[in-house]
Amino acid sequence: MAEEPPSNPFDAPSLDTERSLLIEVHDGGQNTHTHMKFRMESMLEEPGDGSIIHCPTLRDELTARPSPFIKNNYFGGGFVSDQDRVCLQSIKFATERSAGSRSHNNLLGLPNAAQHADGGVLEPHFLHLPDHAVRSGPRDTIYHSPKETNIAICTVGGICPGLNDVVRSLVHKALDYGVPESNVLGIRFGFRGFYDRTHKPVPLTRRMVEEIHLEGGTILGTSRGLPSVPEIVKRLDLWKIDILFVVGGRGGNAAAQAIHRECRARQVPCCVVAVPKSIDNDLLLIDKTFGFETAVEEAQKAILAAKVEASSAYRGIGIVKLMGRQSGFITVQASLAAGIVDVVLIPEVKFKLEGENGLMAYMETIMDKKGHCVLCVAEGAGQDMIEINGEQGVDETGRPILKDVGHWLKRKLKAHFEDADIKYIEPTTMIRSIPTTAGDRVYCKMLAHGAVHAAFAGYSGVTVGLVNTHYCYLPIPLIIQAPRKVDPDGELWNRLRSSCGMPTFE
Amino acid sequence: MAEEPPSNPFDAPSLDTERSLLIEVHDGGQNTHTHMKFRMESMLEEPGDGSIIHCPTLRDELTARPSPFIKNNYFGGGFVSDQDRVCLQSIKFATERSAGSRSHNNLLGLPNAAQHADGGVLEPHFLHLPDHAVRSGPRDTIYHSPKETNIAICTVGGICPGLNDVVRSLVHKALDYGVPESNVLGIRFGFRGFYDRTHKPVPLTRRMVEEIHLEGGTILGTSRGLPSVPEIVKRLDLWKIDILFVVGGRGGNAAAQAIHRECRARQVPCCVVAVPKSIDNDLLLIDKTFGFETAVEEAQKAILAAKVEASSAYRGIGIVKLMGRQSGFITVQASLAAGIVDVVLIPEVKFKLEGENGLMAYMETIMDKKGHCVLCVAEGAGQDMIEINGEQGVDETGRPILKDVGHWLKRKLKAHFEDADIKYIEPTTMIRSIPTTAGDRVYCKMLAHGAVHAAFAGYSGVTVGLVNTHYCYLPIPLIIQAPRKVDPDGELWNRLRSSCGMPTFE
Amino acid sequence: MAEEPPSNPFDAPSLDTERSLLIEVHDGGQNTHTHMKFRMESMLEEPGDGSIIHCPTLRDELTARPSPFIKNNYFGGGFVSDQDRVCLQSIKFATERSAGSRSHNNLLGLPNAAQHADGGVLEPHFLHLPDHAVRSGPRDTIYHSPKETNIAICTVGGICPGLNDVVRSLVHKALDYGVPESNVLGIRFGFRGFYDRTHKPVPLTRRMVEEIHLEGGTILGTSRGLPSVPEIVKRLDLWKIDILFVVGGRGGNAAAQAIHRECRARQVPCCVVAVPKSIDNDLLLIDKTFGFETAVEEAQKAILAAKVEASSAYRGIGIVKLMGRQSGFITVQASLAAGIVDVVLIPEVKFKLEGENGLMAYMETIMDKKGHCVLCVAEGAGQDMIEINGEQGVDETGRPILKDVGHWLKRKLKAHFEDADIKYIEPTTMIRSIPTTAGDRVYCKMLAHGAVHAAFAGYSGVTVGLVNTHYCYLPIPLIIQAPRKVDPDGELWNRLRSSCGMPTFE
Amino acid sequence: MAEEPPSNPFDAPSLDTERSLLIEVHDGGQNTHTHMKFRMESMLEEPGDGSIIHCPTLRDELTARPSPFIKNNYFGGGFVSDQDRVCLQSIKFATERSAGSRSHNNLLGLPNAAQHADGGVLEPHFLHLPDHAVRSGPRDTIYHSPKETNIAICTVGGICPGLNDVVRSLVHKALDYGVPESNVLGIRFGFRGFYDRTHKPVPLTRRMVEEIHLEGGTILGTSRGLPSVPEIVKRLDLWKIDILFVVGGRGGNAAAQAIHRECRARQVPCCVVAVPKSIDNDLLLIDKTFGFETAVEEAQKAILAAKVEASSAYRGIGIVKLMGRQSGFITVQASLAAGIVDVVLIPEVKFKLEGENGLMAYMETIMDKKGHCVLCVAEGAGQDMIEINGEQGVDETGRPILKDVGHWLKRKLKAHFEDADIKYIEPTTMIRSIPTTAGDRVYCKMLAHGAVHAAFAGYSGVTVGLVNTHYCYLPIPLIIQAPRKVDPDGELWNRLRSSCGMPTFE
Repeated sequence: MAEEPPSNPFDAPSLDTERSLLIEVHDGGQNTHTHMKFRMESMLEEPGDGSIIHCPTLRDELTARPSPFIKNNYFGGGFVSDQDRVCLQSIKFATERSAGSRSHNNLLGLPNAAQHADGGVLEPHFLHLPDHAVRSGPRDTIYHSPKETNIAICTVGGICPGLNDVVRSLVHKALDYGVPESNVLGIRFGFRGFYDRTHKPVPLTRRMVEEIHLEGGTILGTSRGLPSVPEIVKRLDLWKIDILFVVGGRGGNAAAQAIHRECRARQVPCCVVAVPKSIDNDLLLIDKTFGFETAVEEAQKAILAAKVEASSAYRGIGIVKLMGRQSGFITVQASLAAGIVDVVLIPEVKFKLEGENGLMAYMETIMDKKGHCVLCVAEGAGQDMIEINGEQGVDETGRPILKDVGHWLKRKLKAHFEDADIKYIEPTTMIRSIPTTAGDRVYCKMLAHGAVHAAFAGYSGVTVGLVNTHYCYLPIPLIIQAPRKVDPDGELWNRLRSSCGMPTFE
Repeated sequence: MAEEPPSNPFDAPSLDTERSLLIEVHDGGQNTHTHMKFRMESMLEEPGDGSIIHCPTLRDELTARPSPFIKNNYFGGGFVSDQDRVCLQSIKFATERSAGSRSHNNLLGLPNAAQHADGGVLEPHFLHLPDHAVRSGPRDTIYHSPKETNIAICTVGGICPGLNDVVRSLVHKALDYGVPESNVLGIRFGFRGFYDRTHKPVPLTRRMVEEIHLEGGTILGTSRGLPSVPEIVKRLDLWKIDILFVVGGRGGNAAAQAIHRECRARQVPCCVVAVPKSIDNDLLLIDKTFGFETAVEEAQKAILAAKVEASSAYRGIGIVKLMGRQSGFITVQASLAAGIVDVVLIPEVKFKLEGENGLMAYMETIMDKKGHCVLCVAEGAGQDMIEINGEQGVDETGRPILKDVGHWLKRKLKAHFEDADIKYIEPTTMIRSIPTTAGDRVYCKMLAHGAVHAAFAGYSGVTVGLVNTHYCYLPIPLIIQAPRKVDPDGELWNRLRSSCGMPTFE
Repeated sequence: MAEEPPSNPFDAPSLDTERSLLIEVHDGGQNTHTHMKFRMESMLEEPGDGSIIHCPTLRDELTARPSPFIKNNYFGGGFVSDQDRVCLQSIKFATERSAGSRSHNNLLGLPNAAQHADGGVLEPHFLHLPDHAVRSGPRDTIYHSPKETNIAICTVGGICPGLNDVVRSLVHKALDYGVPESNVLGIRFGFRGFYDRTHKPVPLTRRMVEEIHLEGGTILGTSRGLPSVPEIVKRLDLWKIDILFVVGGRGGNAAAQAIHRECRARQVPCCVVAVPKSIDNDLLLIDKTFGFETAVEEAQKAILAAKVEASSAYRGIGIVKLMGRQSGFITVQASLAAGIVDVVLIPEVKFKLEGENGLMAYMETIMDKKGHCVLCVAEGAGQDMIEINGEQGVDETGRPILKDVGHWLKRKLKAHFEDADIKYIEPTTMIRSIPTTAGDRVYCKMLAHGAVHAAFAGYSGVTVGLVNTHYCYLPIPLIIQAPRKVDPDGELWNRLRSSCGMPTFE
Repeated sequence: MAEEPPSNPFDAPSLDTERSLLIEVHDGGQNTHTHMKFRMESMLEEPGDGSIIHCPTLRDELTARPSPFIKNNYFGGGFVSDQDRVCLQSIKFATERSAGSRSHNNLLGLPNAAQHADGGVLEPHFLHLPDHAVRSGPRDTIYHSPKETNIAICTVGGICPGLNDVVRSLVHKALDYGVPESNVLGIRFGFRGFYDRTHKPVPLTRRMVEEIHLEGGTILGTSRGLPSVPEIVKRLDLWKIDILFVVGGRGGNAAAQAIHRECRARQVPCCVVAVPKSIDNDLLLIDKTFGFETAVEEAQKAILAAKVEASSAYRGIGIVKLMGRQSGFITVQASLAAGIVDVVLIPEVKFKLEGENGLMAYMETIMDKKGHCVLCVAEGAGQDMIEINGEQGVDETGRPILKDVGHWLKRKLKAHFEDADIKYIEPTTMIRSIPTTAGDRVYCKMLAHGAVHAAFAGYSGVTVGLVNTHYCYLPIPLIIQAPRKVDPDGELWNRLRSSCGMPTFE
């Protein structure tokens, strides 16, 4: 258990503002992971109350000029000011006893206590957060000459519904600014496309992206693995790329930040703007990630299929394993939506199998009452309990390969419920590859438009996101310093538990 | 054009706080519409800055007792305080030139100017709005004894995706409180079920509602038409109903408010809580209405079908007419999502057909460029332009029957583009009747749970909604005083227009 | 009423084998419809018992050579012989009293009696049909040199699910034969693309058709209207087209036949092969048309939506109007599938509204019993009953424009059931534009492959189809001489009626 | 290798007509599998040419009476005669060189050669098959008095789309005959419901089955495992069941046949009629099994998802494992439909991994050409190649547990293509649990109606099916004597191979 949270959540804790962020990238060819030190306060313009976030720009190195949209005053809707502010916090608790008031952290979806963190390395829970963020949107002054601007677009990491939507809208908005079609380059297969000679960048025309939002996956291709930042910056310089868009997860954002810093260090005048991707919805501060809504929709179908299987079988048990290495958002949300799940297991909440309050005992009561049971588990749950033969490996980005909680549970349940007919569903791959729902489709478009506006406004090292229903820019480090998690004492988990009537298995 | 909005949007205008609301209900058997007068300030606890909304309760007439959940401190997630506050406003504009800053109104989705209003009756645009709303959730003190509580649930107005989800979750949460299954009554076919002897109320058991969320429509049935408030209150008294849930639109909420007032007048101790329904998403203040996300998803499919038809035909024009009497939200959002619409017409924005800047001239350019065109129109658009034979009738609730803009446009376009192959799609009925998306499924559940918590906490005359991502209670009159509209000068409309490159047709 | 059908259906009627077929094409620039005379017996190789169909070829004018697939003996599956036979008739009735035995006609889905025909012009009901058809598939001898073969593909008439599937598989199989990509031309917007200078033919590469089967509509575009056969044949000659594929309905097949004959007359050595398209499934002899299965699937959704609407409303009536000018197959099949339809109306079966056995009286009993009702009507039903103002126009192909039975019924029902809440759904456009189901996807592929094999085997003036589960070639005139209809005394209609318990309204 | 097939497929081989069928049931409590001997010729009425199938009846023990439908002559569609005949064979090959002509067997979908069979036990390939089958449909004479008839319905084996459709239509048609609602019993959880005291049979009312066809699974529940035939017959006798419907696969049909024989042996006058279920479509003689079309539709989605995954990844390989223990029909059909599969592996066709013509070598060419690859494998493929630790177990019905070809392939491919990004999808559970497509919905209804007509006509020991597009009755042993398989030399496999351009891996 970490130190006690301060009693008044509105008192900012006095803590070291120098933070260390694990950047999962090659840094300078040394091919090892490194910690990026940064001062949190450098992200704030006016530290203390009323502070707004400092989003870095390259405006000093670039030339200001009026927006091409100034003639129509951006279609009559007008421009956004750099000084427009969006509150990060929109709730005030009467007392510390109010549900969800116990700490800054759970307002942010951060866990209260260190023991919930992944590996315990997350000691600095109490972030010095700003009150307001920068508003996204078109500025009346831009810092690139559209006709001469070269743009590169890169999708990195695992696929996620919406990648093609984002790519399409990045291209569309760039063309709207007046960038020639031949100047918008798609980098193939993630960062690899910067240096893999067999996969050259491709110009992205309006025609090429016309209907790609109706398909899953990414037409650019993607890849995992650590990028070589110096190599990438060399190509950005060589190819005279003015704007780089990185659509990626926490790792991809970290890489974008490293590229941004390396560009600064080598005086390569390239604006790096990230569009944050996480099918798990585990990014700090932003209302939701794109693709999450789609994933929940499809995950719910798997859960309903498990219900059909379980209830049709004699003493049927349906197990659905969903994505979520560190965060159970998909699992929780899809279970809430389906409305027929009996047990939910997520990485943030420990459980025990045996004993009076254990999972098995509870499932016995369900089986006795209903004759069948549906259990939904996030892939990262129960990692501390699963015995494996040999060593746990690491994947291509250095993350530990998760132990297979689904098959482990199936085995344990089969041992306990010998007469049960256990069905196991693992829909992850199908969920990742589908086209977006209409809601995600609009969201991807807005994020992409915001990213293009940011780049033309000279911002670099920023990412885009929806905050309290408003589109914002945020410095990249802010949202990736830790994974967002389901607070085991917070409202979301409580809603889920009260909705399915599930106890804790402690 | 109404008077100039005040230059600083944060200066509250000094206006008459006594407001008049058209309540579309029978009032006292006189069978006519009536205006309900109410003082807006009566809805505010502390008028002026920092004011929070006053949500009325019947606590004086009821007996307080501890929540049954107090033993488990509501599953460990804790209780909500009546004094927890949710900001209604989460953006601050740097100057009045910032996009969207021109008035309070467009922050609320209200039109700036009177001429956009429906019939021009909406003179009092500048509402004295509170800063904070009351947070939704379980209280540690409740005011009904669950074992003896009688509950009635009623769905009124047109069907909308999510009605069954809401009914199911109202029942579930009531049973969780400890209300016996036989005490939860479903009123059949809207308010009609209170006095139609052929359709008696039915007890709603857990089993009956088990899988209803997987089906569209409402198992209770619904009806339109003006309710007889005194008759309803008589039955509430006779049947000893302690809590009435009304799931309905602006009319249904107005009726709920009238029932609440009539109960007060006649000292019938029944808590009336509304769950606001509007497939058009045209309710003030709340982030979105349930069913809207589902409707947009399905509407998008119709638009994509129109695209296929139009692009496969020789000089094809696809017209899609969507719902939206006064507000174009579905039309705008589905067009944004589909990403292939050329022209969008909504009730809030006037257009002309002929002339240099007219619709026809613009469509000619599209037809020349692409060879085909997709047009999406809300049913309420262009009402001022459509000539009809004879008189415009009224529907069963007294609203004018809309003139058929879809067929009118088809006729006009056929006259202009003689060689065009025009396809017309009107998917409204199919949109209304589908089951909910996962996102709406969760939203309906949360609204319903919040409504049950409100009723047990003794609130009456309140409605539930999501405000800046937080669940809240609001006094009914606040959200129904005017329909929420797409601001023709605001961000949403601008996003749509910049996304499809459409001019104004003025 | 036509002459009495012969008592023993296996006795071939002795009738005039010279038949006259209305070909809906421009013939020789005279711009008028014309009747194509043809001798039915010319389609039979061995008239009388054991006869097989004569499928015309151009082999006399072309050079035979071995199939390129001969090396692998067509992947080991072998070649098909021109003499392989498929029975057209696979049922034998014990007596004439057996259900469905009354005439040849209803075995073929033809109506028994002239009064069911559209306009009464269908006098020659009793066709001299062959016993066996020619089997579809690759031949070991081909009559075009693949490397030098020029191919044109044309989609004509209304869109239908599967057009892109067919186009894709025609291209694929042509490329498999060894035709160069640049030699496969897509004709734009139906026959119009042969002479409209603004829409030149496009070479269809493997890449272009890669994913088109996942989209609805036709990438080639289509158009309605009468083609100019001489103009088309002039282009076929000029462009040196060796093989023309026409994907079209009865009109398109008639045009293909006219082109085939004109090619013969002018000695243009072009093999014309049709792929029959009819979303209504109204083609003679073949088990089903492509797209029909998909259309039924989607139509069923509309019916289920109508059920939701009707059952949620107070005295709700749901009306669904489906396609089917002359044949009610979609309406019947979708109603059977949905399993919740109360009344079905199709063009083949007359009904009366009023009186003891009328529709209204029956619907009253349904409304009394269930409180709501779902009615499914084909667009061609009740045409004789609908009064219209002014004259009935004709469409671009000269067919009478149907009177709107849907709105007519809605009006009649509203007059009869004043308190009813009537919902009207017309999903036709959405049904036509969707991508195919898996079953149709495979079917389209098989038809297209068969068509390419036919053309390379030198056949011309033939069409492809599934007959008693086997793929066959048939002379075009055979399948288009009359629309296939639901036999009012046959099994399909009886299944539907017994399934929904519906009387006749006579 | 079995003996050489006779050169002329129309020459019936002279073979022993006494056949032995493995009935996977408890027989008389001895709890072991047993072989049921039966004389094939006993299934034929007139052995030799023109023979029709003998479908056994209990008419001798029952009382004939007129059908209740005789008044309306079955809605005007008429009755079916026991002597109406449906051809089992509708194709005649010109020579034995014609594709598909090599044997009786492959006409039936049976493999040519013993080595394709599962375990080589299938020695008697050459079946003495009849020419004609008995037509399904209502008879004018029935053998049960509807008012006093007791009916039991049982679903057994794995779930499959359509079970609820069949149950619903069995109930509906029984009620149409006039059977009282309380007399139609649903047996819970397969045969287990006959003797498991905790799960009593439930009366199936019209209301209970009203909307079950819209849901997957089976409301009755199902179970696997060998039934105790004497126990079941004891209950049939005790409960005075006149008609038993068994909806099940080959095992379920075998059990139905055993029950039929045991009833005969013990003079229990119960008509046993089966509705054949096999999601794999591996039943002899019938055009297709119900649920197969639905399964292919859903399987295709998984394949398309794999394509998205594979093509988005850097050197992506997508593997989809589908159901098909002994038969690859789903795998072949879904691959044909998807149209983007590179490699298909099924149980009927051996393959080798290594060497010049091996799978790995071929996949290398695909990876070089496209950069990615999609492979679709049936669960029963490659069983002879997979090494396992320890012994291969058996499942609850005594069948060997299949070795996991999917993970084995993934492992082998990972070893061969070290840099590949391999995605593995196993959608089986989701496929089984979905509701039916419209086509299957109609098919289930027709089968169920046919089954009820059969039972009332006094047939017992028969099953229903579609043969050459006509509904028929067949003696149970006929369709279950061997699994239907994809003929490795036949048309279906060849279509698939020519469609994806795949060689043999031999």
